[in-house]
Amino acid sequence: MHAYRTHTCAQLRSGDVGNQVRLSGWIHRKRDHGGVLFIDLRDHYGLTQIVANAGTEALRILDGLRAESVVTITGKVVARGPEAANSNLATGEIEVHAEDVVTQSSAQELPMPVAGEAEYPEDIRLRYRYLDLRRERIHQNIVLRSNVISSIRRRMIDQGFTEFQTPILTASSPEGARDYLVPSRVHPGKFYALPQAPQMFKQLIMVAGFDRYFQIAPCFRDEDARADRSPGEFYQLDFEMSYVTQDDVFNAIEPVLHGVFEEFANGRSVSPLPFKRIPYRESMLKYGNDKPDLRNPILITDVSDHFRGSGFGLFDKIVGGGGVVRAIPALGTADKSRKFFDDMNDWARSEGHAGLGYITQKNGELGGPIAKNHGEEATRKLIAELGLGPNDGIFFAAGKEAQAAKLAGLARTRVGEQLGLVDENRFEFCWIVDFPMFEYDEEAKKVDFSHNPFSMPQGELEALETKDPLDILAYQYDIVCNGVELSSGAIRNHRPDIMYKAFEIAGYSQEDVDTNFSGMINAFKFGAPPHGGSAPGIDRIVMLLANEPNIREVILFPMTQKAEDLMMNAPAQVTAKQLRELHIRVVEPPRAG
Amino acid sequence: MHAYRTHTCAQLRSGDVGNQVRLSGWIHRKRDHGGVLFIDLRDHYGLTQIVANAGTEALRILDGLRAESVVTITGKVVARGPEAANSNLATGEIEVHAEDVVTQSSAQELPMPVAGEAEYPEDIRLRYRYLDLRRERIHQNIVLRSNVISSIRRRMIDQGFTEFQTPILTASSPEGARDYLVPSRVHPGKFYALPQAPQMFKQLIMVAGFDRYFQIAPCFRDEDARADRSPGEFYQLDFEMSYVTQDDVFNAIEPVLHGVFEEFANGRSVSPLPFKRIPYRESMLKYGNDKPDLRNPILITDVSDHFRGSGFGLFDKIVGGGGVVRAIPALGTADKSRKFFDDMNDWARSEGHAGLGYITQKNGELGGPIAKNHGEEATRKLIAELGLGPNDGIFFAAGKEAQAAKLAGLARTRVGEQLGLVDENRFEFCWIVDFPMFEYDEEAKKVDFSHNPFSMPQGELEALETKDPLDILAYQYDIVCNGVELSSGAIRNHRPDIMYKAFEIAGYSQEDVDTNFSGMINAFKFGAPPHGGSAPGIDRIVMLLANEPNIREVILFPMTQKAEDLMMNAPAQVTAKQLRELHIRVVEPPRAG
Repeated sequence: MHAYRTHTCAQLRSGDVGNQVRLSGWIHRKRDHGGVLFIDLRDHYGLTQIVANAGTEALRILDGLRAESVVTITGKVVARGPEAANSNLATGEIEVHAEDVVTQSSAQELPMPVAGEAEYPEDIRLRYRYLDLRRERIHQNIVLRSNVISSIRRRMIDQGFTEFQTPILTASSPEGARDYLVPSRVHPGKFYALPQAPQMFKQLIMVAGFDRYFQIAPCFRDEDARADRSPGEFYQLDFEMSYVTQDDVFNAIEPVLHGVFEEFANGRSVSPLPFKRIPYRESMLKYGNDKPDLRNPILITDVSDHFRGSGFGLFDKIVGGGGVVRAIPALGTADKSRKFFDDMNDWARSEGHAGLGYITQKNGELGGPIAKNHGEEATRKLIAELGLGPNDGIFFAAGKEAQAAKLAGLARTRVGEQLGLVDENRFEFCWIVDFPMFEYDEEAKKVDFSHNPFSMPQGELEALETKDPLDILAYQYDIVCNGVELSSGAIRNHRPDIMYKAFEIAGYSQEDVDTNFSGMINAFKFGAPPHGGSAPGIDRIVMLLANEPNIREVILFPMTQKAEDLMMNAPAQVTAKQLRELHIRVVEPPRAG
Repeated sequence: MHAYRTHTCAQLRSGDVGNQVRLSGWIHRKRDHGGVLFIDLRDHYGLTQIVANAGTEALRILDGLRAESVVTITGKVVARGPEAANSNLATGEIEVHAEDVVTQSSAQELPMPVAGEAEYPEDIRLRYRYLDLRRERIHQNIVLRSNVISSIRRRMIDQGFTEFQTPILTASSPEGARDYLVPSRVHPGKFYALPQAPQMFKQLIMVAGFDRYFQIAPCFRDEDARADRSPGEFYQLDFEMSYVTQDDVFNAIEPVLHGVFEEFANGRSVSPLPFKRIPYRESMLKYGNDKPDLRNPILITDVSDHFRGSGFGLFDKIVGGGGVVRAIPALGTADKSRKFFDDMNDWARSEGHAGLGYITQKNGELGGPIAKNHGEEATRKLIAELGLGPNDGIFFAAGKEAQAAKLAGLARTRVGEQLGLVDENRFEFCWIVDFPMFEYDEEAKKVDFSHNPFSMPQGELEALETKDPLDILAYQYDIVCNGVELSSGAIRNHRPDIMYKAFEIAGYSQEDVDTNFSGMINAFKFGAPPHGGSAPGIDRIVMLLANEPNIREVILFPMTQKAEDLMMNAPAQVTAKQLRELHIRVVEPPRAG
């Protein structure tokens, strides 16, 4: 018989009754029923009920052990009576009567329990992460994460991609966030940087003649924590392809994302292929942002033309002054009180906006200040234009376009949530496409890049030479799921001549480009293929699938929000010898007072 | 028709003749045959011959482009005549007659050529790695590396392992090498360390109740480069299992390694399962080291007893003084000149050893100084004891055991190589087991750990309490292939009581243990399962399979031996602002003169 186990704690069934078996695991729960001891023995795979009878040596040993001690139990598999069977447990038809017990590890009193669902403070959970990870939900999240990543890998390989490891000790990359630096021992005064993303490397992999690269890539940004961003490191599904159009990129990655989400949807639905492709300007209009949650059925409509010259003073004036009015339908709100609408208006003001005007309807009966001022006929015309029913209200966001669009987007989300219109059982994907290449920078009073200067402009060199820069779109795109931006991506600009021209439009000389992006621009001068890609965030994908709002619930050993590893005690002080070898000295922070 | 390609450069066959196709790729070679231009067009997948006829626009464009420019060719697939077909090329039956050419990227003059096998200096190769990687051998090495890693992953998952990502920004681990440090912005004066290996984490994953962990894990050691170790980062197949014996670990990983090597053996043979298990002491005797190359058929034999009291002055005296004599057969050396044997003796002296005595044989006729001094009868008896034939010579390494064993090992390797006895077409695996737990430290005049203090001693607490420490073996093992140590591994000591006792024997107090290894020892006090694992080096596995002696030939973007990335320019100077944010200052190295 094996020293530790003949079966896992999830394996035994009624067919095993009568067999002598050996199990090892943690003492999950202990219950004393009239001198007989019942133990739930737990391992990675499941639970098995162990019975230690009165007066036995087995009972004596088990009785003396705390929960979470590790034991090896040898004994006979016994059928539970029908009344004692537990259909919630895979092993619920049987129990093991302990004949021999070996203590592998005796547990001290625990700083937090493992059995049960009680919430514990995050610092305790992270300090004793090895206990926290034994708890069912987090244990399952981590297994889910592994399975998701493994599924992504398999699907990428099936799509003809090859995984490569890019360097982690490298140079600063122009991603715009703060780098983590690593002092060099061999080169005094010089530093490596940890990659914010392998962007440069993946483009150089294409220049090196590989065709379809991917990597589950660790990325590092020294930025403060957010709910959806861990301080320190995070992972992305980094990929890049040569000789592709934007549609080729979409067609390659959509089946991977769709397949992974279907595989782990657990009853939730996934939007069918191909995913919707929504131009940036349309998204800003209809959803008020560029990462729409398509589970929310509310669509924003521009009603500026309706109010232009309408005689409805406020809106007429805004539209006349170059502003816009956006309508946010409040679907099925006949039974909502005036308070619902007024609270929404108050919320908008509290967020720093001018407020949300509204119209209410109850079986076609109009209400609210705007209906009154606008007049019944005009209001009914507007409702008809918007295709709304007799029980749908409307909120209005008005003002300068950028502000009105933003408020409309926030209101759409809030109204959708408050009315319960967002179906939690769906994953709705879309691509946002046709981002503008340039924008007018009001502060600097000049044209600048609006997103990524390294994306290929649509129309390439000819567009740059002939069109109004503000009309030029880029082959740049975002992939969005349920209102969460999983990634940006682009067809890259691989042509030095087009790169110089694009930077010239944004006010930079050829020398500026050569100085700041020498590595990439030089590589492009030795034969570069057209290429493009994207890099969906792994942690965010797992958060969506695990339905966890906090990224630390899907990471094995996360740092605290203050970027500390409480379990391993990092960061920590180092020795003078280490600093000397690295040619650096710590600067004392100024003392208080 | 697709903007860039209807086929890759490896796809077209005679069945495609007559079709209009589009290909994109790099101009690999250009040949002008009487006004007709022949181009080898190359992409990641292969080569296709393009023909541009005299007087065409296609020829004009292609003629003006340098090698490695990127073009898109549209044209008709034409059969090559039997005399022009190239059976070495997958597409050798056809060629594409160019009708339209689009220049995607025009190449400047290259710092190194891509076509051909010429050697180039490493600094040029690494500075222009994106060109170097287009060359056939290195391109194939990198694809092999990806395929090997992907195969390892699949096989590990098939064995029930789950992959987890452990932190890269973490605390210093007690691996013994120098850490890379990362200054913390948020915690002035404190530093993260990059992991030398995820050793602590993988053990904590077991304590956290997961069962079979693995990771293709990036590891970081700030050590100087060697042929088989890249400066900076390297990858290992890190794995750990709970509730296992040493044999369970072997049985889990052997099919993975065997399967991967068989998959990529490319005609070479792989030693059958199960791999040989050789006790440490036997390996030191028979092979003179603990990483034997089993392809070498020479076995070392201890012949001390033969010479004890033999009257052969030198060896008799060495054995009488507590030393040893080891015989290294020189198989099939009848036709070797005296010079071969004397050169070996000179080599041993040049390596700082006392020399290699020898006996020669030619059809049973004895020769060499030792045969003469030892006498014919005694020498023939020795040859019979060693089971040697009439054309086998013998070298002798004599002296104190450690030195004689080492010399014997080096001589075994050298003799095997010089006689061509090492079969390059085999992969020979073995486990070295039963490493001693403790050794006597001659310098410190005390017992100390001989390898890893955290391995479980065989016999556990009882052995520590009752046996001579120098007789205690550990559940520690190495996996070796063709003389290359792929990894150490161990069944870990998961019991604080056994850990305290083992450290006590090595002269450390309980307080020492608690202070230096608090994280691990505390975790073990809350219920730890028996566990063990190993971590075979990925880069070394790929080196063996690719038959490359230099690790930089199997890494995509390696650093130089001086730990520089010449392509990305790392390490580099950083700004004063960055240093200020990190609370550090660079210490100027003392100026020369």
